[in-house]
Amino acid sequence: MSIVRTNIPRADRAAVDRLANSGVATVHEAQGRTGLLAPSMRPIYAGARIAGTAVTVSVPPCDNWMIHVAVEQCRDGDVLVVAPTSYSDAGYFGELLGTTLQARGVRGLVIDAGVRDVRDLTAMAFPVWSKVISAQGTVKATLGSVNVPVICAGALVHPGDVIVADDDGVCVVPHTHAAEVAEAAAVREAKEAKARERLKAGELGLDIYAMREKLASLGLEYQDGQAEA
Amino acid sequence: MSIVRTNIPRADRAAVDRLANSGVATVHEAQGRTGLLAPSMRPIYAGARIAGTAVTVSVPPCDNWMIHVAVEQCRDGDVLVVAPTSYSDAGYFGELLGTTLQARGVRGLVIDAGVRDVRDLTAMAFPVWSKVISAQGTVKATLGSVNVPVICAGALVHPGDVIVADDDGVCVVPHTHAAEVAEAAAVREAKEAKARERLKAGELGLDIYAMREKLASLGLEYQDGQAEA
Amino acid sequence: MSIVRTNIPRADRAAVDRLANSGVATVHEAQGRTGLLAPSMRPIYAGARIAGTAVTVSVPPCDNWMIHVAVEQCRDGDVLVVAPTSYSDAGYFGELLGTTLQARGVRGLVIDAGVRDVRDLTAMAFPVWSKVISAQGTVKATLGSVNVPVICAGALVHPGDVIVADDDGVCVVPHTHAAEVAEAAAVREAKEAKARERLKAGELGLDIYAMREKLASLGLEYQDGQAEA
Amino acid sequence: MSIVRTNIPRADRAAVDRLANSGVATVHEAQGRTGLLAPSMRPIYAGARIAGTAVTVSVPPCDNWMIHVAVEQCRDGDVLVVAPTSYSDAGYFGELLGTTLQARGVRGLVIDAGVRDVRDLTAMAFPVWSKVISAQGTVKATLGSVNVPVICAGALVHPGDVIVADDDGVCVVPHTHAAEVAEAAAVREAKEAKARERLKAGELGLDIYAMREKLASLGLEYQDGQAEA
Amino acid sequence: MSIVRTNIPRADRAAVDRLANSGVATVHEAQGRTGLLAPSMRPIYAGARIAGTAVTVSVPPCDNWMIHVAVEQCRDGDVLVVAPTSYSDAGYFGELLGTTLQARGVRGLVIDAGVRDVRDLTAMAFPVWSKVISAQGTVKATLGSVNVPVICAGALVHPGDVIVADDDGVCVVPHTHAAEVAEAAAVREAKEAKARERLKAGELGLDIYAMREKLASLGLEYQDGQAEA
Amino acid sequence: MSIVRTNIPRADRAAVDRLANSGVATVHEAQGRTGLLAPSMRPIYAGARIAGTAVTVSVPPCDNWMIHVAVEQCRDGDVLVVAPTSYSDAGYFGELLGTTLQARGVRGLVIDAGVRDVRDLTAMAFPVWSKVISAQGTVKATLGSVNVPVICAGALVHPGDVIVADDDGVCVVPHTHAAEVAEAAAVREAKEAKARERLKAGELGLDIYAMREKLASLGLEYQDGQAEA
Repeated sequence: MSIVRTNIPRADRAAVDRLANSGVATVHEAQGRTGLLAPSMRPIYAGARIAGTAVTVSVPPCDNWMIHVAVEQCRDGDVLVVAPTSYSDAGYFGELLGTTLQARGVRGLVIDAGVRDVRDLTAMAFPVWSKVISAQGTVKATLGSVNVPVICAGALVHPGDVIVADDDGVCVVPHTHAAEVAEAAAVREAKEAKARERLKAGELGLDIYAMREKLASLGLEYQDGQAEA
Repeated sequence: MSIVRTNIPRADRAAVDRLANSGVATVHEAQGRTGLLAPSMRPIYAGARIAGTAVTVSVPPCDNWMIHVAVEQCRDGDVLVVAPTSYSDAGYFGELLGTTLQARGVRGLVIDAGVRDVRDLTAMAFPVWSKVISAQGTVKATLGSVNVPVICAGALVHPGDVIVADDDGVCVVPHTHAAEVAEAAAVREAKEAKARERLKAGELGLDIYAMREKLASLGLEYQDGQAEA
Repeated sequence: MSIVRTNIPRADRAAVDRLANSGVATVHEAQGRTGLLAPSMRPIYAGARIAGTAVTVSVPPCDNWMIHVAVEQCRDGDVLVVAPTSYSDAGYFGELLGTTLQARGVRGLVIDAGVRDVRDLTAMAFPVWSKVISAQGTVKATLGSVNVPVICAGALVHPGDVIVADDDGVCVVPHTHAAEVAEAAAVREAKEAKARERLKAGELGLDIYAMREKLASLGLEYQDGQAEA
Repeated sequence: MSIVRTNIPRADRAAVDRLANSGVATVHEAQGRTGLLAPSMRPIYAGARIAGTAVTVSVPPCDNWMIHVAVEQCRDGDVLVVAPTSYSDAGYFGELLGTTLQARGVRGLVIDAGVRDVRDLTAMAFPVWSKVISAQGTVKATLGSVNVPVICAGALVHPGDVIVADDDGVCVVPHTHAAEVAEAAAVREAKEAKARERLKAGELGLDIYAMREKLASLGLEYQDGQAEA
Repeated sequence: MSIVRTNIPRADRAAVDRLANSGVATVHEAQGRTGLLAPSMRPIYAGARIAGTAVTVSVPPCDNWMIHVAVEQCRDGDVLVVAPTSYSDAGYFGELLGTTLQARGVRGLVIDAGVRDVRDLTAMAFPVWSKVISAQGTVKATLGSVNVPVICAGALVHPGDVIVADDDGVCVVPHTHAAEVAEAAAVREAKEAKARERLKAGELGLDIYAMREKLASLGLEYQDGQAEA
Repeated sequence: MSIVRTNIPRADRAAVDRLANSGVATVHEAQGRTGLLAPSMRPIYAGARIAGTAVTVSVPPCDNWMIHVAVEQCRDGDVLVVAPTSYSDAGYFGELLGTTLQARGVRGLVIDAGVRDVRDLTAMAFPVWSKVISAQGTVKATLGSVNVPVICAGALVHPGDVIVADDDGVCVVPHTHAAEVAEAAAVREAKEAKARERLKAGELGLDIYAMREKLASLGLEYQDGQAEA
């Protein structure tokens, strides 16, 4: 029952890089408000914005052995995604694992558990999104699996899917949809750029998006606040 | 039942600006330890310290339509206060809404729900205090109200009240008490400035505040820790 | 029942300083994965790394009077450890108390409750690890004790024990073990330094730690992910 | 600043009793989905369904003195509503306070904090809705107020308002709206009774509420699940 | 993107009923400690033990419209499984929906959100496992899907899978494995029955499971507690 | 570092049984409001009220092996107290372990983690206080210790101490204080019995405890609520 899938198909690199530029909120909207991991997943430092192809790891609670196994399956451009089979806030990952991943070109870690050595990881600019920061050590006693589908922070991640992560959180894009979602995100950004200019100039969303009539038809009423004051 | 109150009375600008200088902890003490929002309200970046007059929005869960309506009611010096009618951790607010508010001179956002685009909002220096950071999108389907009293993070906020917010959290001052509380805060600060100098010089609070006698009368005892060691 | 133990024995200063250099994760491992406080204890700003000898305070909920009493017992090189007798998220500690502790050479505060004035404390470089940031004021009405054993965030702390704290959290080292743990931590660091170089050079933990055989003996299987794709 | 308002106006008894019969979910809907306290408020035993007029108490954290003061203000048909001024999970209320309230005809307690002696309170059939069950004792040191507006579990309660509570939670009805909401609740119940009979007989909500056309117009599609299986 | 899959394949009824008899803890172990939903899923009353075939519903936050659509897809022996696309603690389900499901032979509801009318549902003996009890109403405005794979409380559920639920929580068994897992569960139960008799007779697990030698080999030591006392 | 202390000194049986009769809230007060475990510890069924002598177990996260070791150390009149060395919500304990403990006369289990088979444990009348109910299985891979001091739900428990548990939670009494605390609890109960009769007869706590003068001296004011209405 414990397997390591090697040589997995991965999403197209160009699409991955376009998704990184768009960021989590835009990508999440562009694929129909799906794929978002729970907001409990927070970055250990502000400012990182990445996308990469998922190498997934299903780990037992409080046991990080399989992360060492997973490292070998990681390539340049990947993001490691770690999901315990039951709740754990132990510190599965630290600076030594960050060093080995960074040496392989891995872009970051997403883990629905704890991370430690965050000062060192920050200094190395190796970004991590985790549920908690915890120095609690783990053991190396029980097997798990690498590159199987995992549920990470409430979202289903298949190996090779695109992981987009920034200060807003983490989003997964199925690897077969990467190009399509990247395109939809770009369209959305262009539209937002236009709205931004109008808003900066003082126009209102009520007018830009033509909301007034619909609001009135639903019964929204305006009252003068000084009259009653 | 869905109304927008326009042209609301607002607290006096001079008092508002004095309250900003005092900060949340001092203002909270100066008005008798009232008005604090729950400590779940956290800033998206460190270092902002603001005060402004509240424009309040009561929104349905996972629906941000009324925020667009509220924008039009905002003026220079306001703070937008958003409270869902039931629990939501969706991302009601992002960089485009920040842009339109900033264009109107709004000083910040306080929302008992989620916010997204925090990297952009930080770059724009538009401060937000929220319960969570979440990219989860909202819909625009159901009405709410603007400038009605709302309960935000456990505190009652009336439109026009003063919102003070900094790294310690958020506090509301009833708009009729703004000047009085600003004065009490200033008195408190002057007193603290004197204590600070004495403490820096090595005096003890036990002596400055004359606590020893009362502590002894209540039965506090001192024992030599080496004796038993 | 309310006592202040004065003149407590403290862990050896040289050992304390060595432990500060090792940091929380290493110290926690070096003493057999014990002594960690709950991960709910977070620093108010990033980057501080300290160790010091514990002056402990047992306080009633929402009452900070005994902290003033404890200040007098603090010496250069101490860390103040505050534990309420029942849950409280009030703001027991602010900038004035930080000023008086800093004037005495105290290295930081660990409190299983709330702290306020975090902007000022950050500016002063007085580090605090707390459960929450809260401006909520406390009273000065009920006694507690100073330099008695306390349970702080799930860990037992005796006065004079070593407190190590950094961005990963907080760890306590019994004061009689300080030198021994410092030595074990140094050994561990030397070992990690060697592994780090090999990992940077592209070697795998699987090989460095000779894990492959044991993994295979437990039944780990490799499958080609393209075969089934 | 600490006051006790005596002899408060109370909602009409007949309306109160009608609201008790309708229960929380129906009353909440009947007044436009407002007035619900947070779902963290849970009954200490199953099966109680009450309504009564609120006597409100604003209490300091971990201090139950004002509950003793409030008892004297309670009359037959009241419900005591207790809200701490900041978070507390202490056990403010036990069997002796339940005895004195029951002797005055009080119908139950709603408290955004802890309760204890729950075995005795259950045996007495004195219902309590609380955030937590906790034996943690409180002190009697600081004043608060009785019969002032309080925010309890996120809802604003004025003295004299109607509190409706059952296994679904707690709802507040402004005392001036009691009769009107009771009537709307009765109308709603009659409508639900008709729907219930049709549903029992096997009709579908899709047909009873004529939803099919609207669903189709929004694009809902049906696919045969065996075709693809 | 909103679809209803009709006529889905379902797990074999005989296997389903065997799984109900085994209960959640045994089934979870029998399929290799997989399939458990998060322990936040709790029954609204004690004592129910069911298994059934999943009809799944993916619902928007705070919108229960698709549950009405799903009812029509339910048959005798099913369990309805409801998963919001983002966090919600609203009360999606009450007694009228329970009535219509019970009329169709549905065995229970599993919902990663709120439920209301729990007194009525208990009286009807319609079991529900939910994250929260909440009277908060929902809207009927946005589409979702029926009989698509959903992630419910951290577990992936496909339509037609077996849902086992009792006082210990909820477990999902892939519908293709139902018979195999039922058999493994029966084997486990037989083995446990033998152990139970020996334990009742006073034998120790240490001996029955032959643990002593392995414990000693790992270094477990026994010390006389009176010697040091 | 893994030890089992055998033959530990235990608190006096007569004192233990007196403490059981007093219950948690009274015992907690009688020993000066100390010894209470966190209110997260809840009974799996209502109505049990026990006291017993603690056999303590320090267990690794998600590993229940040491509970089997601890069983052998249990005697008639004991209560098993299980504390993981870091957070775990796994189901460490089920009906088979309950059977073996009950066969030895053990009165109940207190565990700062998960329990399963709660239907069976309830039917057996074997009471358990736990943080969570969870079917999640554990492993048997790592040693821990039996009859060492543990911190369980925030309270320090030594082997042989008295554990008192009922519907209000769990309290620990140091075994050397058992008789003294039992006596203080009895005194308290006698006093409460007198107050109860007076309260039932309609007297007020304000008068019984002579609170009025002190309240007035602190500035409590009474206002007629009809005057302003």
